[in-house]
Parts: sequence; structure tokens; C-alpha cells
Amino acid sequence: MAHKTVYIPVETLKRFMVDVFTALGVPRDEAKTCAQVLITSDLRGIESHGVGRLKMYYDRIKQGILSPTTRFEVVTEGPTTAVVDGHNGMGHVIATRSMQMAIDKAKEYGMGSVAVRNSSHFGIDGYYALMAVEQGLIGLAFTNARPSVAPTFGVEPLLGTNPIAFGAPTDEEFPFLFDAATSITQRGKIEVLDRAEEPTPAGWVIDRNGRSATDTKAILEGLKKKEYALLPLGGAGETLGGHKGYGLSAMVEIISAALQGERSCTP
Amino acid sequence: MAHKTVYIPVETLKRFMVDVFTALGVPRDEAKTCAQVLITSDLRGIESHGVGRLKMYYDRIKQGILSPTTRFEVVTEGPTTAVVDGHNGMGHVIATRSMQMAIDKAKEYGMGSVAVRNSSHFGIDGYYALMAVEQGLIGLAFTNARPSVAPTFGVEPLLGTNPIAFGAPTDEEFPFLFDAATSITQRGKIEVLDRAEEPTPAGWVIDRNGRSATDTKAILEGLKKKEYALLPLGGAGETLGGHKGYGLSAMVEIISAALQGERSCTP
Repeated sequence: MAHKTVYIPVETLKRFMVDVFTALGVPRDEAKTCAQVLITSDLRGIESHGVGRLKMYYDRIKQGILSPTTRFEVVTEGPTTAVVDGHNGMGHVIATRSMQMAIDKAKEYGMGSVAVRNSSHFGIDGYYALMAVEQGLIGLAFTNARPSVAPTFGVEPLLGTNPIAFGAPTDEEFPFLFDAATSITQRGKIEVLDRAEEPTPAGWVIDRNGRSATDTKAILEGLKKKEYALLPLGGAGETLGGHKGYGLSAMVEIISAALQGERSCTP
Repeated sequence: MAHKTVYIPVETLKRFMVDVFTALGVPRDEAKTCAQVLITSDLRGIESHGVGRLKMYYDRIKQGILSPTTRFEVVTEGPTTAVVDGHNGMGHVIATRSMQMAIDKAKEYGMGSVAVRNSSHFGIDGYYALMAVEQGLIGLAFTNARPSVAPTFGVEPLLGTNPIAFGAPTDEEFPFLFDAATSITQRGKIEVLDRAEEPTPAGWVIDRNGRSATDTKAILEGLKKKEYALLPLGGAGETLGGHKGYGLSAMVEIISAALQGERSCTP
């Protein structure tokens, strides 16, 4: 295995990320927020969504897809609800502010929810659920994602990996946190396998003929061209509950997209 | 196959259920609510939770586990939240009233949630999510259940089938409704296989050695004695995401039990 592990102090890595974001035009305070979300992912052992994704944000800012300065516009607001437009700013900044808004509403009224349009990629979903937990509340966070998952009995990627995060305070040393894609896996995990030069387990990905695919490099290339699709939690067909993963993904799609009036990923 | 299908008019079956519940001491209006939830299950094609469960409610009332008259006590209440004690009355009656309470709160404040302790078995989870949809809202309903599901890498049934129901209005002829156990399957589906004298698909159930079990009659007997356990959505181990089904089940456990101060199903 050609893979080699290099250890870097957390603070060095975090400072590096802040410097990169700042150099790209992200205001220093907001760059710290982005770096904090990414380093939290690595520290929680979620290698797929940490510093390994820095290049993706870099590329998207350079391509003009992502705005380094964030315009946070409250579109509508009620006592417990709000819709925010993030104008494709930094997802970590938008999500942090939106979650805090929901937390403040919950502190006043018992519940609060904020839906965000043009939110952009925000790192690990669980970070935002944990924000609520740190303030003594139960937190839920959802997001849709670009199409990469095939619906049950389908082969075309129409659904996002659409994660669900749920956090709750406990009497134990650590809070309870659930944070998972509604698909069996997601691209980031396959990228980790690629860096380790390992094959993809059978049952994660299908080709356009519905056959299981395991060639990691071919999958990463093919996913972009929609030649492959990830499978929903529960796998192919209905026998082992694949329709439930499909349904959960559709639920998150509706919560994430329809609630805030954004075009759904499904055509 | 010895299985024989008999067709009975919906109204006849519903009247029969109302008569049975009334004879057991359930007030007529509340008996109608119970029958309405059960017949809705059959009409939606969920054979596992409809009239086929009437005998279970009958037995539980006869055994004194279930109270035919329902005491609906509001324990605590805030603007958007409430905790209700159902005192082991009829689950359909308690859940219908609780959901309506949550709906009324949502109509006033934008969101509403009601947690119920001593709720008893309430039929299909989706019925209550649909109540919100019929009143123009998005509805979520969760419930814990008696232990029948093994956690990832375990063989002992410690978790309930803990379903998630989510309903939303749509622009189409029908609303969106997701209503599913967080396990691959649940007892009711295996009872349907038993009535049809069919084997249980491999991968649904494990024995105390972690081996897949398929003998439907043995499974139904053994589940009661905890000799078998259902598997979480995603199946055994972590490879196909079984830990995600486990996590979703634990999430519902916390939402259903911890929120209202009831003893959790897990020891």
C-alpha cells in the first residue's frame, strides 16, 4: 500500500486553513469558522469531510461558484421559523448563523427552525446539531446535496446523499450524536479508499446496468459523469429495505429544498 | 399455498371493529377513532397494522395491560411543546389528540411538538403525520417500541423497531408520506408471511449466534423469547450501513422516550 500517514499538529493545520481561506478573500473571523468546522470533522474521525475537502472549497471559490464573502439575507421570519438566503457564500458561515438563529428561537418559544436557500457546501452536518447540544437543546440538521444516489429500482443518480444529523444532551461524558448520509456511503468515503488505494465494497455503488461496481478509481471518475450511482441505505431493491433509504433521502430533500422554495434535486 | 383471500366491504369491517372496541368498554366515539386508524392501514396496503392487529388490542384490554377508557393528562405545556401522559389508554385516541395539540400549536407559533408517555400501541405511525398534512402542515411522528432489534455487532434485541413518519403536502394528487420502521422489517410483516405460509427472507432476522434465520414460525415464536432479533436498516455489521439503522433507531428512542422522561427501552 503506497498510502503514508503524516501527523500534523491540530493548531498548525487549522492556522493553515484560516490562511488559505483568508488569502481567498474570506474575512478572517469567517475563515476561522470554516476552519473550525473542517478541523472538527477530522478530530471526530470523519476524514472524508475535513482538511481533505479544503481543495474543493478553494477550487469553487476560484471558479466563482462559491462567494468568499457571505451575504446572509433573512427572506421571511416568524416566531419559530425563518427562511434565509445564503447567496452561495461560505456554507459553514451561513449554517452556523442559521443554526444560532434557530437555537435563539427555541430558547424563546421551545422550538425553532431555519431553512436556507443557496446554502453551499457546509462540511459535516453533525457540527450544527452539536451547536444546539452545547446550548442545552436537542438539535436536528438536514441538507440536500447534488444528485449521486439512485432511487430504488433505478440506476440514474437523482437523489443527494442527504444526511440527517441529530444531537441530544446526555447524562454521560459525551452527548449523543447521529450524523449520517441516507445513502449507504458517500463520495468522501470513496475518496478515502482512493487515497488508501483500496477497492470499494460490493453493494455500495451500481453502474448503469444496475450491477455492483468496486473499482474505486473508475467509480470516482464515473460518478461525475453519472455513469455510476450510489445506493440508498438498505441497498438495491426492496428486500433489505432499500426503499426506506430512498424514502429517508426524499424526506431530507423535502425538508431541505421544498421548505425554502428552492428547486428540488429531482427533476 | 393454503392462504385464501376473503373480501369484506370496508364499512362492514369498520363497523365490526367499532362493535368489538365498544363491547370491550371503549367509548363509541373513541372506538370509531381506533377503527379509523386500523382501517386506514389496511386501505393503504399496510396489512401488518390493520384489522389483523384487532386481536392484539382485544387481548391487551382483556389482560388489563391496556385501558379501554383513556385518561389524557397534560403534564407540562409551553407555547410550542407539551408532555402528555396517556395512562396506557387507547393509543390511537391518545396519539390523535396529541397530534391535534401539536398541530394547533404549529398553527399559532409555526412549530409544535407533543411528547407522550404511557402512550400504548397506536397503529400506523403515518396516520398522525397525515393528520398534519390534511391541515396544510408538514407532520413528523415517531414512537419507540418494545425491544426486538439487535444493535450493530450485537445479537440481543435491545432496540424497538422505532418508526419514523414524515408527511408533506404536495402539488400532486397525493401528499408525500414516508412511514417506516428503522429496522429492515418488523414483526407485523413476518406475521403476514406466516399467514401466507412463506419463509422469511435471509438478512432480516438473526439468531443468538448472529446467523441469519428464515423459518417464519420459529422466528415468530423465538422473537417473543428473545431467541431471535430483527436487524437494523442496513443489516448486520457496518459494511452496508447497519450502524446507520442502529443510529436512526436510537434517535427515535431518544425523541420518543427521553423527551418525555419515560424509561428508555434500552436497559
